[in-house]
Amino acid sequence: MANEKIPYKVYLEENEMPKAWYNVRADMKKKPAPLLNPGTHEPMKAEELAPVFCDELIQQELDNDTPYFDIPEEIKEFYKMYRPSPLVRAYCLEKKLGTPAKIYYKFEGNNTSGSHKLNSAIAQAYYAKKQGLKGLTTETGAGQWGTALSMACAYLGLDLKVFMVKVSYEQKPFRREVMRTYGADVTPSPSETTNIGRKILAEHPGTNGSLGCAISEAVEVATTTPGYRYVLGSVLNQVLLHQSVIGLETKTAFDKIGVKPDMIIGCAGGGSNLGGLISPFMGEKLRGENDYQIIAVEPASCPSLTRGVYAYDFCDTGMVCPLAKMYTLGSDFIPAPNHAGGLRYHGMSPIISELYDQGLIEARSAAQTEVFEAAEYFARCEGILPAPESSHAIKVALDEAKKCKETGEEKTIVFGLTGTGYFDLYAYQKFNDGVMDDYIPTDEELAKYVSKLPKID
Amino acid sequence: MANEKIPYKVYLEENEMPKAWYNVRADMKKKPAPLLNPGTHEPMKAEELAPVFCDELIQQELDNDTPYFDIPEEIKEFYKMYRPSPLVRAYCLEKKLGTPAKIYYKFEGNNTSGSHKLNSAIAQAYYAKKQGLKGLTTETGAGQWGTALSMACAYLGLDLKVFMVKVSYEQKPFRREVMRTYGADVTPSPSETTNIGRKILAEHPGTNGSLGCAISEAVEVATTTPGYRYVLGSVLNQVLLHQSVIGLETKTAFDKIGVKPDMIIGCAGGGSNLGGLISPFMGEKLRGENDYQIIAVEPASCPSLTRGVYAYDFCDTGMVCPLAKMYTLGSDFIPAPNHAGGLRYHGMSPIISELYDQGLIEARSAAQTEVFEAAEYFARCEGILPAPESSHAIKVALDEAKKCKETGEEKTIVFGLTGTGYFDLYAYQKFNDGVMDDYIPTDEELAKYVSKLPKID
Repeated sequence: MANEKIPYKVYLEENEMPKAWYNVRADMKKKPAPLLNPGTHEPMKAEELAPVFCDELIQQELDNDTPYFDIPEEIKEFYKMYRPSPLVRAYCLEKKLGTPAKIYYKFEGNNTSGSHKLNSAIAQAYYAKKQGLKGLTTETGAGQWGTALSMACAYLGLDLKVFMVKVSYEQKPFRREVMRTYGADVTPSPSETTNIGRKILAEHPGTNGSLGCAISEAVEVATTTPGYRYVLGSVLNQVLLHQSVIGLETKTAFDKIGVKPDMIIGCAGGGSNLGGLISPFMGEKLRGENDYQIIAVEPASCPSLTRGVYAYDFCDTGMVCPLAKMYTLGSDFIPAPNHAGGLRYHGMSPIISELYDQGLIEARSAAQTEVFEAAEYFARCEGILPAPESSHAIKVALDEAKKCKETGEEKTIVFGLTGTGYFDLYAYQKFNDGVMDDYIPTDEELAKYVSKLPKID
Repeated sequence: MANEKIPYKVYLEENEMPKAWYNVRADMKKKPAPLLNPGTHEPMKAEELAPVFCDELIQQELDNDTPYFDIPEEIKEFYKMYRPSPLVRAYCLEKKLGTPAKIYYKFEGNNTSGSHKLNSAIAQAYYAKKQGLKGLTTETGAGQWGTALSMACAYLGLDLKVFMVKVSYEQKPFRREVMRTYGADVTPSPSETTNIGRKILAEHPGTNGSLGCAISEAVEVATTTPGYRYVLGSVLNQVLLHQSVIGLETKTAFDKIGVKPDMIIGCAGGGSNLGGLISPFMGEKLRGENDYQIIAVEPASCPSLTRGVYAYDFCDTGMVCPLAKMYTLGSDFIPAPNHAGGLRYHGMSPIISELYDQGLIEARSAAQTEVFEAAEYFARCEGILPAPESSHAIKVALDEAKKCKETGEEKTIVFGLTGTGYFDLYAYQKFNDGVMDDYIPTDEELAKYVSKLPKID
C-alpha cells in the first residue's frame, strides 16, 4: 500500500543533490525573445549589460543553448546548509479532503529567507564575489528576496543596499530587521537617495512605491557606485536557471519513490519559483518524452498571464532596464494597495511567457480571500503556515484534488510550497478579522496601462 | 576525512524515529521530589490532579519508574509531518571560528510553532482528545508554546483558550495572529475574565503580566469550564518525557554517523528542551555507561539555577497549582520588562533541578547583549536566524569552541537550536539599534522574592 511505502517527507542524500542547473531554454525550439536595448531596440549585447549585471550572470542570461551549467563547489556547499528541501506527501490533506488524489508539495520555506529565493541569491552573490565586486544593490517587495540576498551577502562578505517597496517597508518592519541583522542597508522606495526616486516622488507624492520603481532606484545606485552591480530575484533567465534546483530535486525525489506526477502547480509573480519547479518536467515535455499538466496561478489583482498582453515592455518604472518580451500589464501597473504578499510584478518571466504562449502552461488567477481560505485550511491540516504567494498554488491544488474526488481520478498532484507566512501576519490578521479586500482591476483600468507599452516592430 | 563523510544534515529515516519516549526518572537513583498539595503538603495523588490535568498525562507525570512509554500511533503520524528534525553539522561555524571542535546542533525550529514545543503539544492534545475533552487552556509567554498548542488543537479539533503574558501580547501581535489562524482564543494576561486576573490587576494595576500569573488564569478557566483541562508547555515531568524525542533522535543520528558527543549544551527556562535533548545521554550517564559534560544556559536576568534556591515553591502566582521542589527565584519573581524572548519562568523543571543538585548538570548564565551577539554571528554564518532562547546555547557553544581553539582540543559539541527568531524581531531591532538592556537582578532583589517561599518541612 502506498501509504506504507512512501514516507511523509522524501529527502535526498547529499550525493543525490543536483550538480548542475538545467537551462530549459536549451530544449525550447522557439526561444524566449531577447532583451532589447531600450534606445536602439536591438538585442542587448553582453557588454551593454555589464555596467548593470555581473559578468558570469550575463553569460547565463544570454545563453539559450547550453543545457546544463555546473553548480560551483562553493554554492553546492551553501546549498547543503538548507537543502535538499523536502518533497512532502500531504497525507493529512488528502485524508481531510477525502480525495483519491495523491498530493505532494515541494517545501522551500525551511530557511530564514522563508522562501526559494535563497537558491538564486547565493548564486548571484557568489558570481559577484568571484568578480571581485564590493557590493550589490537590489529591490524587494514582500521582502523574501531582500532577506535571501542579505543572507547570501553576509555569508560571502559583500555589502548590500536594498530598496524595499515603501508599503512593504511600513507593513513589515520585521522583514527590515531581519535584513539589518544580516548587515544589509535597507531604504524605503521611492526614496530621496536617487535621481529616479526624487523624480517619482515629485510626480507621485505619497506613492506607496512599486517593484518597478524600486528596481529603477537599485539599478541607478549599482551603475553609479564603483564596485557595485545590480541583482534581481525573479523574471530573468538566470534566476530561472538557478531555481531549476527546485525542479531537479523534485524530479529526483519522485524518481526515487517511483512516482510520476500528473499535474504541477506553482504560483507565479515574476515566475522564478514556477520556472524552477517545472524545469526538468518541461524539458521532458519539450523533448516529447513525457507529458505533464502545468498550471501557473497568479493573483486576480495582478493578472499578467490571464489578462495581460504578450509584448515588449519596460522591466522597471524608470525605464532604465532593457526591454523584455513578456506577458505584461504595463510597466506603470501597480496592484491595489490592499494586495497582500508578493506576486505583484507587472510582467512575467520571458521564459514562462513564451512557454505559456506556446500552450505548454495553463494559467489561472485566484482572489485574495479564497487564497487565504486555502492557506488556513492547509495550515490547520499540514501544520505549516504558508506564504500568501504559495497559497495561490495551494488554492488550485485543493480545487484539483476536489475535482478528483468527484471524478474518482487518482491523479498525482505536486505543487510548489515556496515559503512560509511568518512575516505576512499583517495580511492574515486582515483575513482573520474578515476585512480582506478582493479588489480586481477592471478591463478599463488594465487597458489604460497597456496602451502605454513601447512600440516595437 | 570527516568533512567528506559526515553530511551537513543528518536526517533519520521514518523507521529510525523513536517509537517510545524515554523517562529519565527511571534511571535516577534519587528521584525528583514529588508535587505536593499546597494545603496539606502531602504528595499529590492522581485524583487530586484530575480536575486540572488529563488522566493519562497524570500517570506520566507521577511515574518515576517506567523507562519507556510507547508513542501512540496518531502522535507518531503527526511527528512525521515535521520530524525527524535535522542534526546539523555546523561546518561553516567551525571554519569561521577556526576551531578544531566539531560543532553540531539539533534544529527544532522547522515547524510553524518555531520551536520544539510542538513535540509535547501534540502529545498533550492527543490525550485530551482521547479522554473526550472539549477543549484546553494554557498560558504562553514568548508565544511558542501557545502557537504549538494551537496547531495541535486545530489538527485534532479541540478548542483552545490561551492566556498570553500581556507584555508579549503587545510586543508580538503577530504571534497572536498565528494562534488565531489556528483557531485559538487568545487573551492578554492578567485579564478581567478570571477571578485571579481581576485580583492581580487590582493589586498591581498596569502590570505587564508574567507566566506565573497566566498559569493561574488558565488553571482557573480549566477547572471551572466543563470538558476542559489545563496543559503546560514546560517544567512538568510529562513534558520532559515527550521532549525526550529530541534527545532520542539526536542519539540515533550520532550513532548512525559513529560520533559520540563530549559536550551537550541547551538553553533552560522551564527545562523542557534541555531535559529532552539530554535525556538518553543522561540515561547513559546515570547508568554509568558513558560520560558527557552537560551545560544548562539560562538568562542572567532570570537565573533560577545559578542564583536561585532548591526548595518547594508555588508554580504559579495565584498559588492554585501544586507545590514543586525546584531551583526557584520565588513565585513572585518576574524578569525585568526589557528581558527578550522566553526563559522567563521563576522556577526550573524538578527533574533538571534534581540532576543539577546531584552535580550531573552544570549551569551558566548569559546576558542579553552577548546572547544576541552570538545569535547574529550564528545567523550570518549558518543562515538560520535563531530564537533568543536558543541563542543562549549558541553563546556557550561558541565560548567552548573558542576554548578548543586555544587548547587544540577536538571536542565534539552539540547544542539544542530550539527554534527560530522570526517572531522576535522586536528584540533583534533593539539589538540592531544598540539599545539592548542587560539588567541583572541584584542579590537584594532576589533575596526579597526567595524570602516568601512556602515553609515545607
